[in-house]
Amino acid sequence: MKTRSVSLRVKLPVFVFVLEVVIFALYAAFVTYDEHTDARFQNNHTNPMDNAVYKDYPFFADIQVMIFLGFGCLLAFFRLYGFGGMVFNFLTATFAIQWAILVQGYFQFSHDGKIHLGVINLINAEFACAVVLISFGAVLGKTSPLQLLVMALLEVPVFAVTEWAVLKYLKINDAGGSILIHLFACYFGLGVTFVLYRPHLNDGHAKENTSYQSDILSVMGTLFLWVFWPSFNSALTLGGDDQHRAILHTFIGLSASTLTAFALSVMLNKNGKLTMADIQNVTLAGGVTVGASVDMMISPAAAYALGVMGCTACMLGYKYLSPLLARRFRIQDQCGIHNLHGLTGLISCAAGICAILAADEEVYGPSLYEIFTHRAPVEGDPKLQELQMLIPGLRPGLGRTAREQALFQVAAVFSTIGVSALGGVFTGFILKLPYLAPPSDDFCFDDKPYFDVPPNYDSPLQLYSKTATDDSAA
Amino acid sequence: MKTRSVSLRVKLPVFVFVLEVVIFALYAAFVTYDEHTDARFQNNHTNPMDNAVYKDYPFFADIQVMIFLGFGCLLAFFRLYGFGGMVFNFLTATFAIQWAILVQGYFQFSHDGKIHLGVINLINAEFACAVVLISFGAVLGKTSPLQLLVMALLEVPVFAVTEWAVLKYLKINDAGGSILIHLFACYFGLGVTFVLYRPHLNDGHAKENTSYQSDILSVMGTLFLWVFWPSFNSALTLGGDDQHRAILHTFIGLSASTLTAFALSVMLNKNGKLTMADIQNVTLAGGVTVGASVDMMISPAAAYALGVMGCTACMLGYKYLSPLLARRFRIQDQCGIHNLHGLTGLISCAAGICAILAADEEVYGPSLYEIFTHRAPVEGDPKLQELQMLIPGLRPGLGRTAREQALFQVAAVFSTIGVSALGGVFTGFILKLPYLAPPSDDFCFDDKPYFDVPPNYDSPLQLYSKTATDDSAA
Amino acid sequence: MKTRSVSLRVKLPVFVFVLEVVIFALYAAFVTYDEHTDARFQNNHTNPMDNAVYKDYPFFADIQVMIFLGFGCLLAFFRLYGFGGMVFNFLTATFAIQWAILVQGYFQFSHDGKIHLGVINLINAEFACAVVLISFGAVLGKTSPLQLLVMALLEVPVFAVTEWAVLKYLKINDAGGSILIHLFACYFGLGVTFVLYRPHLNDGHAKENTSYQSDILSVMGTLFLWVFWPSFNSALTLGGDDQHRAILHTFIGLSASTLTAFALSVMLNKNGKLTMADIQNVTLAGGVTVGASVDMMISPAAAYALGVMGCTACMLGYKYLSPLLARRFRIQDQCGIHNLHGLTGLISCAAGICAILAADEEVYGPSLYEIFTHRAPVEGDPKLQELQMLIPGLRPGLGRTAREQALFQVAAVFSTIGVSALGGVFTGFILKLPYLAPPSDDFCFDDKPYFDVPPNYDSPLQLYSKTATDDSAA
Repeated sequence: MKTRSVSLRVKLPVFVFVLEVVIFALYAAFVTYDEHTDARFQNNHTNPMDNAVYKDYPFFADIQVMIFLGFGCLLAFFRLYGFGGMVFNFLTATFAIQWAILVQGYFQFSHDGKIHLGVINLINAEFACAVVLISFGAVLGKTSPLQLLVMALLEVPVFAVTEWAVLKYLKINDAGGSILIHLFACYFGLGVTFVLYRPHLNDGHAKENTSYQSDILSVMGTLFLWVFWPSFNSALTLGGDDQHRAILHTFIGLSASTLTAFALSVMLNKNGKLTMADIQNVTLAGGVTVGASVDMMISPAAAYALGVMGCTACMLGYKYLSPLLARRFRIQDQCGIHNLHGLTGLISCAAGICAILAADEEVYGPSLYEIFTHRAPVEGDPKLQELQMLIPGLRPGLGRTAREQALFQVAAVFSTIGVSALGGVFTGFILKLPYLAPPSDDFCFDDKPYFDVPPNYDSPLQLYSKTATDDSAA
Repeated sequence: MKTRSVSLRVKLPVFVFVLEVVIFALYAAFVTYDEHTDARFQNNHTNPMDNAVYKDYPFFADIQVMIFLGFGCLLAFFRLYGFGGMVFNFLTATFAIQWAILVQGYFQFSHDGKIHLGVINLINAEFACAVVLISFGAVLGKTSPLQLLVMALLEVPVFAVTEWAVLKYLKINDAGGSILIHLFACYFGLGVTFVLYRPHLNDGHAKENTSYQSDILSVMGTLFLWVFWPSFNSALTLGGDDQHRAILHTFIGLSASTLTAFALSVMLNKNGKLTMADIQNVTLAGGVTVGASVDMMISPAAAYALGVMGCTACMLGYKYLSPLLARRFRIQDQCGIHNLHGLTGLISCAAGICAILAADEEVYGPSLYEIFTHRAPVEGDPKLQELQMLIPGLRPGLGRTAREQALFQVAAVFSTIGVSALGGVFTGFILKLPYLAPPSDDFCFDDKPYFDVPPNYDSPLQLYSKTATDDSAA
Repeated sequence: MKTRSVSLRVKLPVFVFVLEVVIFALYAAFVTYDEHTDARFQNNHTNPMDNAVYKDYPFFADIQVMIFLGFGCLLAFFRLYGFGGMVFNFLTATFAIQWAILVQGYFQFSHDGKIHLGVINLINAEFACAVVLISFGAVLGKTSPLQLLVMALLEVPVFAVTEWAVLKYLKINDAGGSILIHLFACYFGLGVTFVLYRPHLNDGHAKENTSYQSDILSVMGTLFLWVFWPSFNSALTLGGDDQHRAILHTFIGLSASTLTAFALSVMLNKNGKLTMADIQNVTLAGGVTVGASVDMMISPAAAYALGVMGCTACMLGYKYLSPLLARRFRIQDQCGIHNLHGLTGLISCAAGICAILAADEEVYGPSLYEIFTHRAPVEGDPKLQELQMLIPGLRPGLGRTAREQALFQVAAVFSTIGVSALGGVFTGFILKLPYLAPPSDDFCFDDKPYFDVPPNYDSPLQLYSKTATDDSAA
């Protein structure tokens, strides 16, 4: 115990300071302002109130609350790992965002040899950060902070490359990030936890449980995520009616899945009681399920149905699939991310494909070619000029049919799953390096190895659960 | 005990699934997009940045925080009913909003046989939801989740009809919802709790108390409500200076009532100490009291005075009126909603009437007829044309005098109170059906019948409270 | 004990009611609406959507969350003083804002004998409130609520005069308030605590510690502050690219300081573990350090470096300087505000001066004279007319050189520190009046003298910490 802590005392600072020097050097060499943050670009034709900050910042602020308070509280559900859940989330998120600004910047926001920065980059980086935090859910309580930083260090570039390739070459529709965020994060996390398999944990662990206070805290995290999820799903959609629909569908989907989660939780519990883990997780399924089609004209009723379906799949996953994965397939998915992000993500992709196949000009009007940009006629097509009369500024597309677009979506799903699972497995092997100081099985789900804990950290609880009738109170 | 839980295991899912099928069918049949969410309505004259989403969504997001985190934490103040307070609030709110979208949609937002949906409908539905949650406060800890869902099922339509009738026929000014939200919710809740009277609870209940942690959590709820209350009171006002004033007055009113609440709490406590229940509730009185006149030119000083008066009435209500109502009138008002929403609501209405009587063109300029739309001259009146020169787009009104408008306000107050109290009593009788599984007196204020609780749920606390008088207490 | 409580029972209400009467009278006599809140100023040329409320309110709402939830939770870190930390913050903040509206209004927003009110005044008042709350950190747990109200009563005018004088006569650049907010608050607080020196507390105090739950609550406060700090630093900058940069720099600075704080916390702890107090405080250092130059073209890399430097200074201050100040200089700085606001504030000022010296037209373009308004050419200078061609509406300045502007910044730093320290010492002497009922040393860091506490308030914790080795634990 002592040896390991002392070694973190040197290893963590060394690792962080090296990272900081590298990041600082890269910022200094390559990062500059974009046209909305650079004073030089402002002239007498620029209206300050048209600055992108007013469009982007409200969404950014909402997503910040989700990342730091939402994920932070949600992951603090363990009785003796509340500091770990909340504080390692803080550490990992902070690093992932800094790093994603650079990596995504290189792939998506660079020209003239520079990465150009505005709040829009921060929103994109927070999405990359959400990916890391979802994967974190698979290994919660079983990894040292050093392992988490290394995971973020590796996952962000794999994600950024995948995102860039899928958006640039497959050109898919995925406004809520069901494919790129949820499926990627899920299968990456499963890959990592597959390699980090700890057989003894399958028999249960004395510290793998919650307390009354930690359960309430975790529900607060759920509520932060629930309340601001419409901002998450709509932050990068087209402005106007598309963004409006994304907000509406996300809200309806979440509402439907919440109501369903309560019913299923009671029904599947042998005493007919509510399980707090269901309230904390399954209620959110609808937010993922509406993701891939969130900005399309799917109708409010479809958003409702998607919420119910996503919730049902997620709940059955928790009940039947997760135990199976852990016992048979060596996949110990601590927070059940395969249920909340994997199964729901797949349903979402399927729904997205249906919505794409059903999309036509009758329903969307000419703005069909704004939402599905790649279905717009190619340069030179007379139909393009016709449309440009109706929608000035419409860009030429690839002339894809609905069917072609759907096929590209399918390709994106499979390639994302493949790349992320492989990346996760690879990352898992790196994380096994003894230098990264993984906790022993005994000290999983425990704040003690990493924090100076206050005297009451486990007293009244242990007092009760272990020794309620005997004398061994310390 | 066991029997009842098992019965919820069947009843709750059956009830929820039936509701969901009905709601889905109604959404599928009748709900469509409004002009700001429908892609077909966008053309080359539509500027995406003029979409109503940018005006409405920030207010919607703030109110979401109030509903789910504010009410959720505030209602979690019981020591052994923290899950119940927070989680049943989540359940009830989610269902109430889905349902209100349909019911309000039918009365207020339907044309061509369809309900047209945008974020503005969600804001209205959240107001209906707030009504249900306030009423919930009267019966907190004494109702099963099934009873709460039935209450929402009945209260939402009664509210929606009242709202529609009062706005359409009496045409009142009530920007902050003092009449329609607070008075309605209060008297409906009192009606319900009157019927659900439990004589034994008047002698105190072993579980009807707080813990240190639950009190802090509840204060957090208060702070969420406090911070975003200006958004609540201003969300549906006219844009521009009216909305600006609503924010200002709400903030000033809340500030004044908070300061007063601290002074009165210390003064009325026999040991000269602060009572946490006062901090949690009475501080908020000012937000209600400014409601009915919140967008009018009442002056900042008047908002301040309203905050002080509302707080005083609310505090005296908690101290003297609530015990009386419980003992003499069979009205067990668990969270004291009659103090925080009833008494303050009445003061607010009186203040609103004074503000209406005092309103003239000297103070408001021609925009008098925008705020008090029904005082605008009738179609054909030459004065109307004169005013339309000053305010293009001014709609003809009813030519009401200030006095007439005040009388309609009075009519609205009495009819709202009457309808809501009757509706509450009727709902109470329905809630008494044994099928809805009300908890026995013993299991009031207790999470155990409804939740799988962690081992520490009552241990250290009971440990202490049970043995405080023997030798182990320190 | 009893006597004192009884005396608060009279003193606090009397004091509050007198304040309220005075404040109400001043509001009634002098406070009116500004052009954006007054209905009379709206005419057919006024577009409601151009009202200042839409620009200011989002920032105001974010700062509200910081003040009431951020500071409130952060200050609730003591095991037995959670009510005090959170609730006295609520009381003090509410009063400080009411009072600041009047005092700042008199100095900055009055004309025609009236103070003109809009949301912009509320933002300014919340900054004054933040000043009081930072100073509160120095004496947390050692002051009665009456003392806190008196402190706010005195600090707000001293602050408002300093702010007015520095902005009007020295005309400095300080967008994030490093000089006016952080340095002022810090040295005022140190002045107060210097006078209120309690020698016995230097030997440690039985109640001066945290619990597992209170540490988590305090981290939530940190996260609220962290998440919305960009709004705090940018609320009063120029609109457009300036505000955009302020958001970006604050985020980058905070990220860098958070990562550094984790590394240093582990490194400086003798067991190589994380210290929760570091996570709660030092992570925020970057938000202060970028303050003085937050809207300038300092480059993202410089914001990153400032975050790292501020964090390092802050951490070393906690480790080495605070104990020294307490033992040698009678300055018991309870929350370490000298580290988080003083040292970082000084670094920020130095960085601001460097940024000012480096600022030229090559980097900023003509908008140099919008950010550094006092460097704009004087009225009549032909260069002014040239610039006005490029930036219509540019106001004539004082023709200051970069060097002159830098010297004024230096002058502002020293005079602010001097005035605030003196004001703090003076306030400290007033706070020593026995009428204000300071708690005895024994009852420091304890809720009991001020609150009706629930039975479990210290039981399970004391049970453990006092009797861990004896037999009374069950």
